[in-house]
Amino acid sequence: MTMTDFGRVIAPVLTPFGASGEIDAGRFIDHAKGLLAQGCTALAPFGTTSEANSLSVAERKVLLISLLAAGVDPAHLMPGTGLCSAAETADLTKQAVDLGCGGVLMLPPFYYKGVSDEGLFRHFAHVIERVGDHRLRVYLYHIPPFTQIGFSIPLIERLRREFPGVVVGLKDSSGNWAHTKSLIDALPGFRVYSGSEVALLDNVRLGGAGCISATANVNARMLRQIADAADAALADGLQQRATAIRTEIQRWPLISANKAIIAHVRKDAAWALTRAPLDALPAADAKALIAKLEGELGLSLAA
Amino acid sequence: MTMTDFGRVIAPVLTPFGASGEIDAGRFIDHAKGLLAQGCTALAPFGTTSEANSLSVAERKVLLISLLAAGVDPAHLMPGTGLCSAAETADLTKQAVDLGCGGVLMLPPFYYKGVSDEGLFRHFAHVIERVGDHRLRVYLYHIPPFTQIGFSIPLIERLRREFPGVVVGLKDSSGNWAHTKSLIDALPGFRVYSGSEVALLDNVRLGGAGCISATANVNARMLRQIADAADAALADGLQQRATAIRTEIQRWPLISANKAIIAHVRKDAAWALTRAPLDALPAADAKALIAKLEGELGLSLAA
Repeated sequence: MTMTDFGRVIAPVLTPFGASGEIDAGRFIDHAKGLLAQGCTALAPFGTTSEANSLSVAERKVLLISLLAAGVDPAHLMPGTGLCSAAETADLTKQAVDLGCGGVLMLPPFYYKGVSDEGLFRHFAHVIERVGDHRLRVYLYHIPPFTQIGFSIPLIERLRREFPGVVVGLKDSSGNWAHTKSLIDALPGFRVYSGSEVALLDNVRLGGAGCISATANVNARMLRQIADAADAALADGLQQRATAIRTEIQRWPLISANKAIIAHVRKDAAWALTRAPLDALPAADAKALIAKLEGELGLSLAA
Repeated sequence: MTMTDFGRVIAPVLTPFGASGEIDAGRFIDHAKGLLAQGCTALAPFGTTSEANSLSVAERKVLLISLLAAGVDPAHLMPGTGLCSAAETADLTKQAVDLGCGGVLMLPPFYYKGVSDEGLFRHFAHVIERVGDHRLRVYLYHIPPFTQIGFSIPLIERLRREFPGVVVGLKDSSGNWAHTKSLIDALPGFRVYSGSEVALLDNVRLGGAGCISATANVNARMLRQIADAADAALADGLQQRATAIRTEIQRWPLISANKAIIAHVRKDAAWALTRAPLDALPAADAKALIAKLEGELGLSLAA
């Protein structure tokens, strides 16, 4: 069995919008290519950070095709495909597999609460069987702050056992390093990504897969340096800086703050726009954030 | 301006599935017609109770057409159309309006958390403008136990002010009567439905619109008697009984329990099936629930 190695630094790609809320495919493609050039080892379009849950199924499909048509290698893509509806999840996932994507990042069906492991297993089994393609690689997306529900270790073990080589990893956006650590410890060979670079070094030192992080959109170079550092002291120093930068950015609404930074870097105000229900970061807040990042925190925000 | 009066007892119609999870349109139509015959004044297909958030957009569209093709009057329908994507919400809403539905029940975009009133306003404004039809009647769906986010009174006031005659009501599934009361008090002329019949009598006595309740699927006759009772003491007595029945049913997973009751009433085991991620009520639990309802609580569960 061959399997794409997505590497250790994955960005959930921000989605730029026009003034009427329409997707701006040109800016999206430029940004995605730029992230790979800056050191991201792979991209996760249609993540939480991508405002993907404000996109329609049709919008996602068209945008993924646009990205590939622009020359991005699908082996480096792990698009988000998990929706509340199993049929729509399978539909998006099948497209990703057919286009050669190295994997997909799959949310649990996130409307109903208090659901059982048995119910979640049946949902994922149904989606995987409906896609029915041995090339499928599923990364489970554990993000209780948004979904309330999530993946227990027994559920993950059952999915791995029933779908070996298909259910291969997980993104842990619980925001709790002890939880990520328990997954890495309990699930040898499973690719456990941290949902933030704050735990990047701890993750890779313990044998985890790396991070899939919102702020890889604005700090990819540094994250890649951490992941690649041969010297432990150097890595620790870079991790400290990256953690300080992330901590500052997440003091603000994370998606809007990332977009405000990109708007500044690219001298392109349109980048700051978000789709409802999210709001753009107010200009004064953006100015304060950027001053802090470029000043005290020493982040180089040149394009 | 004319406006459908949906009356006081609305059922969010259960959706029956086959063994492979496919929608069973025949059983759905039979049940929907039965609810109107038993006293429901209107129906809200595609509510939370309908497992609608496990259906695809395409499945909802086909099922709504099937219901109308079977002769159900669209003026009595308030289908749920609120999804995370504004484009898909507008698409479903436009279908409902085009088919003559008396209104729609609209969830807020429920993936992102901590969103602002401004962001939610922009979302709803975008959907309403995209539908662009003066026949549209929107009932807001406030259900924080599932969505976390919800509708503040200032947001509702702004939506009513900007879209008079279009944003006309709300279903309050906060589970908190004090909250429902505050809405009825603050928003004269707004049609505030309680999300449970436990508050039916309080609701209508205070000038509210009635209830849209999961358990109207199994207790429609009694709820209609409460709503129509000319005598206050009679109404109080019925309300007490209905509250006791609801309280018992909601000790169990509400959707599965409702389906188990219908399976019993119709002597049709297939009715008990749910779509993942929900589980059917275990047979022993169903037996205990039904014994309690038919015994101590005196609910008549004949077909």
